[in-house]
This record gives sequence, C-alpha cells and structure tokens, in this order.
Amino acid sequence: MNRCFKLFKPIQSHILFLQNKNLATLVERRNPNYAILTDSDFAFFERLLGKERCVDDTNALESYNTDWLKMCRGNSKLAILPKTTSELSEILKYCHEKNLAVCPQGGNTGLVGGSVPVYDEIVISTKLMNKIINLDNESSILSCQSGCILQNLDEYIREKAGLTMPLDLGAKGSCHIGGNVSTNAGGLRLLRYGSLKGNILGLEVVLSNGEVLNSMNTPVRKDNTGYDLKQLFIGSEGTLGFISGVSILCPQKPKAANLILVACDGNSFKTVIEVFKTARQELNEILSAFEFMDRESMIAVKENSNLENPFDKEISEKCNFYCLAETHSSDEESAIKKIENFYSKLSEKGLGLNGIIAENKSQFKFLWSLRERIAESLTRDGYNYKYDISLPINKMYDLVMDTRKRFKDNNAEKEFRRCIGYGHLGDGNLHLNVTSTTYDDKIFGLLEPFLFEWTKANNGSISAEHGLGLKKRNYIYYS
Amino acid sequence: MNRCFKLFKPIQSHILFLQNKNLATLVERRNPNYAILTDSDFAFFERLLGKERCVDDTNALESYNTDWLKMCRGNSKLAILPKTTSELSEILKYCHEKNLAVCPQGGNTGLVGGSVPVYDEIVISTKLMNKIINLDNESSILSCQSGCILQNLDEYIREKAGLTMPLDLGAKGSCHIGGNVSTNAGGLRLLRYGSLKGNILGLEVVLSNGEVLNSMNTPVRKDNTGYDLKQLFIGSEGTLGFISGVSILCPQKPKAANLILVACDGNSFKTVIEVFKTARQELNEILSAFEFMDRESMIAVKENSNLENPFDKEISEKCNFYCLAETHSSDEESAIKKIENFYSKLSEKGLGLNGIIAENKSQFKFLWSLRERIAESLTRDGYNYKYDISLPINKMYDLVMDTRKRFKDNNAEKEFRRCIGYGHLGDGNLHLNVTSTTYDDKIFGLLEPFLFEWTKANNGSISAEHGLGLKKRNYIYYS
Repeated sequence: MNRCFKLFKPIQSHILFLQNKNLATLVERRNPNYAILTDSDFAFFERLLGKERCVDDTNALESYNTDWLKMCRGNSKLAILPKTTSELSEILKYCHEKNLAVCPQGGNTGLVGGSVPVYDEIVISTKLMNKIINLDNESSILSCQSGCILQNLDEYIREKAGLTMPLDLGAKGSCHIGGNVSTNAGGLRLLRYGSLKGNILGLEVVLSNGEVLNSMNTPVRKDNTGYDLKQLFIGSEGTLGFISGVSILCPQKPKAANLILVACDGNSFKTVIEVFKTARQELNEILSAFEFMDRESMIAVKENSNLENPFDKEISEKCNFYCLAETHSSDEESAIKKIENFYSKLSEKGLGLNGIIAENKSQFKFLWSLRERIAESLTRDGYNYKYDISLPINKMYDLVMDTRKRFKDNNAEKEFRRCIGYGHLGDGNLHLNVTSTTYDDKIFGLLEPFLFEWTKANNGSISAEHGLGLKKRNYIYYS
Repeated sequence: MNRCFKLFKPIQSHILFLQNKNLATLVERRNPNYAILTDSDFAFFERLLGKERCVDDTNALESYNTDWLKMCRGNSKLAILPKTTSELSEILKYCHEKNLAVCPQGGNTGLVGGSVPVYDEIVISTKLMNKIINLDNESSILSCQSGCILQNLDEYIREKAGLTMPLDLGAKGSCHIGGNVSTNAGGLRLLRYGSLKGNILGLEVVLSNGEVLNSMNTPVRKDNTGYDLKQLFIGSEGTLGFISGVSILCPQKPKAANLILVACDGNSFKTVIEVFKTARQELNEILSAFEFMDRESMIAVKENSNLENPFDKEISEKCNFYCLAETHSSDEESAIKKIENFYSKLSEKGLGLNGIIAENKSQFKFLWSLRERIAESLTRDGYNYKYDISLPINKMYDLVMDTRKRFKDNNAEKEFRRCIGYGHLGDGNLHLNVTSTTYDDKIFGLLEPFLFEWTKANNGSISAEHGLGLKKRNYIYYS
C-alpha cells in the first residue's frame, strides 16, 4: 500500500534516506499545512483502539518506518492497528477533520518506497485486519479483510475447498492481500490466472473522510450494473482510498505441479523467446509460469545466497540464459507427457543445452529459489538500483544490453558491480537490477532518466507490477 | 453499444415500441434542449464522410432504428459511418457544439434496448471501423478498431498466430468488439479465459467533445503507471465515451476441443451443481465452458427450431436438467482420458442419466446449437420477457421456481407460455426467460419489480452480462 489520499492532500515532505541521497530530490519539505500529532490525538486513538494497538515506542516503530529494502525511512511517531472497518472509518474521519497525514501500510514488502511514511504521517497498519469473511465453495469466491497474508489465504482455501490464490509472489509469506490489490501485484502466476483486474470481484474501501464504499455485497462473478468503480482502486496505491476488504475469485488448486529449468543454447535472447513459444505451444493450458534469468542472475544467487547452479560446469560456462517453466495440471501423467514433448521440441529446434525437471518437493523448492531469491541476493551486494519494466517481449533484453553498453561508453564499468536482467518473460515484465557497493551518483545519473526514456521510446511501461511509490512518482508521464 | 454521454446530456425522449407498451414508461418525452437535425448538419456530415456514408433513406435506416429482438424502435433520420478515429472525433465535436444527440451503434445485437436510438439521435455506426491495427505474436496482443466483428477477429488471429479470442458469444457473427467491450460482454468462455476487465490491455476512446483518450500506445501485458482509467469505459455502455479502438490479450487456440452433453439424474438443481463440481475437479484446467439448460429450454428449441433432443425418449421424459461441458486442450488423448474420468465419477455419484460426446464437427455444432439457439427459439413464441441475472450458484434455479410459483399463486398460468432457465452455470449467470403470445401487462406486473427485489435480497446482480440498456436503466439500484 502507498500513502493515502495524495489527490486530496499532497504530502510534500522530506524523507530520511538511509543510503540514497538522490531520492531526496523527489520529495520537497514537509507540507506545513498538515497538523502535528498532539497528546489529545494520542488520547483519541488510545480511547478508540486501546493502548496496545497504538505503537509509539521508538524501537517498536522502527519496522513501521523502514521499507523492506532498507532504503527509505520515515519518521512516524505513531502506528495504529485497527481491527474493523468501522474503527478504520473512525480513524480516517478523525484524521481528515484534524488534518493529520496518514500512511496505509500492509505487509510492508513494497520495492518502490510506497509502504512507509515519508515524514511523520501516522502509519495505519492492516496487520490486525486479518479475518476471513466468507468462502463460497460453489462460486470459488473468497472474501476477507485486507490485512490477510497471501500465503495464509492460500493455505486456508486449499484446505477448505481445494482452491488456490490467483496470484503468487516471492513475498507471499508476509505481503497482505490489500497491499497486493492496491499495487495491482502481478507475480509469478499472472501468465496463467490473469491480473487482479479480472479476479477482484468486490472491494470495501474507506475514503479519506471515513466514508465506506462497498462492492463486496454482491458476491457474484459477473455484475454489469453501473460503472465498475472498484477498478479505480486496484493499483492506485492507496491514493484514492484505503482498501479494507477484498472479494477475489480463486482457481482450483492443481493436482499436479511440475517445474522445468532449461539452460538455453546460444548467446542471443531470441533463444529465450523461442523456448517460450515452444512452451506455450506444447505446455499450453498447463503452463502456469514462465520466468527467465540471465547468466549474471545465476552467478548472483550463487555468490550471495550460496545457491549452486544445478547444471554441470561445462554447461553453466556456456549458458547465457535460463528459463523456468512451471506447469499446473489436474493429472501428473499427461503433464509429464506434455513436458516430454516440450523437451523433444527444444531438442529438435536446438534451443536447449540441457534441462532439469524437479523430481520431488525439495527440488521443486530449490529450482524456484534460484529465481525467487535473486532480489534478496542482490541486496547483499550493497546498494541495489531496481527497475520493473514492461516491454514487448522481443525488446526486453535489449534494454539490459543497452544499459551495459551505456556504462561501458561512459567509462563506468568499475563503478557498478552487476547489471542483470530477469523476470516474467510470459508477461513481458523485466526486472532490471544494477548493484554497487554503495550508492553512487554517477551510476544513478547514467540510469535515470535514460531507462525511462528508453522504455517510453519502445512503447513500454516504467511500472509493470511494483507500482510508482515514492521512487517513481515523478516519472509517471513516461508511460 | 449504448447511447452515448448520458452523464453529460441526458436523453429524455420517448421511444416507438413495436410491442412493449410498458417500456414506454421508462423514457420521458424527448428533451427539447437537443437540437433538431437541419440541412446544414446533413451538409456537414456529407462533406466530412461523403454521401454514401450518410444514410438517410427511410428504408435503409430501418435496421439502424430497430433492435435485434425487434422490441425497440427509434426514429433516427441519419446514420453515419466514420472510418477513422479522427472522423469520429470530428463528428462528436460537431454534435457537441451543435447540441445534437447521438447513439453509438456496433453490431446492434444487444438484448436490452441499448444499441438503437430512443428518439431521433444520430446513429454513429462502427460498421466501417473494422481495421486490424496490429497483432503481436510474441505477446499475443491484438489491436484493432472497434467495429471489427468478433468472429472475423477470431478467424484472423487463428490463421495468423494460432490464437483465439478470449470471449465467445452466440452473436459472434455480427457483434462488434467495441460493443463487446462497452457492455463488458461475458459469453460462453468467461469461465476459462476470464472477463474483459482482465483481458483488455488498452482502449482508444473518443469523448463527447471529440477529445481522444488513448491507452493503446503501450502494447504490454502489465502497466501499473497511474490510474487505470480505461476500466471505467469497459461496461459503461457508451455513456462515458465512444470506444474507437481495442487492444486485447488473446489465448492460444486449443489444439483439441470436446463437448459433452449430460442428462442429469434427479429433479433437483442440486444435481446440476454436483455435475459442475465434478467437471471442475475432473476436467479442471481444460474446462472451457459449463452451461445448463432446463427441461423447458430443450422443449423450446425442439418446438420452435426443430432441434431434436438427442437422448432417447425414456431419458428425455425423465430428465429435468441438461449440462453442456466444453473442454479446450492441447491434446486430444489426455482430454478424452479426463472426460472418461468425468463420466465414471458422474456414474459413481449417480448424477448422470446419460451423456453424449460430440464425435465430429457437425455433432459439436449441433450440441452447441441446443444451447446457443434458445434465445432465437424463444422469440418465436411471440413476446419474450428476458432477464440476465447473477446469483450465487446454489440460488440460481430457485428464482425460476419462485417465478413459476408466483404465476401459479396469481392464477396467471394460462397467460404465459414458457418460464425457463438456462445459462452460464460456471459463472453463476442465469438467463431467465418468460414468453407469451403477445405482450401482457399482467405478466409484466408479476415479473417486475419482483425479479429485481428477489435478486437484491439474494445478493445477486440484475445485469450479469447484457448491460442495463434502456430496459433496466431505472433499476440500477437493485444491484
């Protein structure tokens, strides 16, 4: 989730960055029109929620004030934890009347500085809004409060009804469904189950004045009565309202899941595209994810997270790109047959150097970790310049190569440590990451606005799934 | 598509109904603030488009003025056919300045009186806006003008790239993609490929003042930069703007498609739900449609369209409900195996009296026609009261039974001919239809607002996929 109600009351304030000087230019000084929290405000919140749900201890506030990447830090003096929509409504109404700035916070797993306060906004956390409201087994519709953790929901609906959540993220163990919706999170399964735009059937949203909008009362799959206003809140990062409840369509949990890692033959990214096309043709309706990692991604997880490249040295030394294809299917036997067809087509076309299929749960987990733990590995390099870009598939890796060329042309090859590309190939979603030991103005200057201009020129989007947050809020017009 | 710009300039006018007196109460007299078309207006449009694209001959106007069900008739004196967005923009700008009312029209296949003029609005037809703009094979994204016919698009992308459209309707041979988007059409495949909310990646829309909004320039699958304003136009039935271009994500065309008709055992609708649950479990990811028809639907297509019930007399006399399950899959062999498992589970659970699987293309077409031609068959009874309702699946057929009971309790059993229920079970979308020889006030009075109240009380929606159009515009608050 992102800071709330930007449209109503722009938060213009500074931010205490841990490392990144340049981001400070993105935010102006604190808007003096916002009130400063007083003892009587504290007293109001304590009366409403009880002392234990009003966090004002400096140490305890640390986690509310700092983002997951530890790059942005706010200076909030109070984090409050409502349990119900009516409490949330009371809180927002009060803040509206008293002109107090607020920052909605879910699992605080965002990567664009969107889920932490910028200055001294009151953090309103959804941590305790974690109740499941209803699970309709016939219609496969789950309704819950916005603070439910994605993985908990997935486990709940699997046990109760053999269903699964239509989205899956590396952060699933801590991200909240409300944050997923407010950033329109994409993740690993979008290829198969589609975006939240199609899967969210209803929302409950509390506006800045405390008014509650609720479209969760009609728990049906189709509703064409009037304008679909809830869509505006999906991906609006908390700027239009605070999502308090979610109604979501959930697919059947597959009976069989398989995972294949392919070491691509050839230096060109065109091979990766051909492997994807072959997967789409041969695995077709059971293809649930198609990810790619470049050579440097694989080296990073080895060096920083001790995850060994599972291929022989001979292959890994030759291989520039890896593809991870996951299948979700209702029976193992026909899935295996399809995977065999996929393999033989790769071999016929000369696309794969080698392939590995996960043979048990731990191998399945290990192969996924090679992709899922890249983000975490990169933070260990020191500083991480992260970009989340949508591009037509055939342009995706050109951007990585052009970025490297730019470093070379500007004699900056020694300043950065890695420049890597990986991501959701099936969705045209590239995660381009540059790392260095510490933050470096020169690297930053070479990256921005170059990357945004390149993306715009190639008809892409500068925010595929991470949102704009604080880091990209001034670049909205590049897409 | 529906009448444009209701929000800016409400069209309050009467309508010449062919049969239905009561609908006349829905619209007031023509709003005198709208200008009357003059010779100089005619001259403007002829200059802009040429004489042949300005239809003003009374006979030629008949089809633009009358809806598919032949229940609503407008009195437009002019239908114009732009070819480009810039022509459309010029037209709307002119109409805005001259205060002329307009009615956007696509394939004119709507069922709620939404695609024909109400009084003397100028019909702006998308018939000639039928160009394909781009097909990106890697990303599976099709961009086209809004007047492309759904079936033509499906054929084009199948031939060019082995893809298929994510929606399929009985009206596919004449409906336009722009109309599909503006009514958020659901259709037969929503269960598998999801709603247009998830599949539409970009729109070009011309506002009433001629301004063009375009989100088709970013032909990518994911874009989280800023508010997703295009969503507001999906399903807004032309009231916010005129859709001129569409960018849509298309799934792979399945290599194998199979179709099974199940004659359900038992009188209760619970059997239908159990058959659906079994299909969801056994056919899982290959299930592309799940439809149901009641006994009376099957009798109607026999009596009015001469489509024979394919089951023995012994079975058809006992059977109250039929289910049609379609599978889309990448290989025939594993699909057949799954279907066999589905059959044995039905038999184990005592759910099916008998089942038929289409063995060739003509059988496939015939079995689908039993479902697809119900609407057409019912129009042959005389008058057709049509309802398109979303409900939790376990409540769907209660509404049909309660409607019949209401006729009985009010001694109205002789007034109506049929009261039937069929529709998209997998989507919780019931098509409830009542027919009579001619329009009857008593029947209408028994149906409305009863059906809307019942739907509201059961947390449903009074418009699942047909839109509000003219017929339901006053009942918007029932959902």
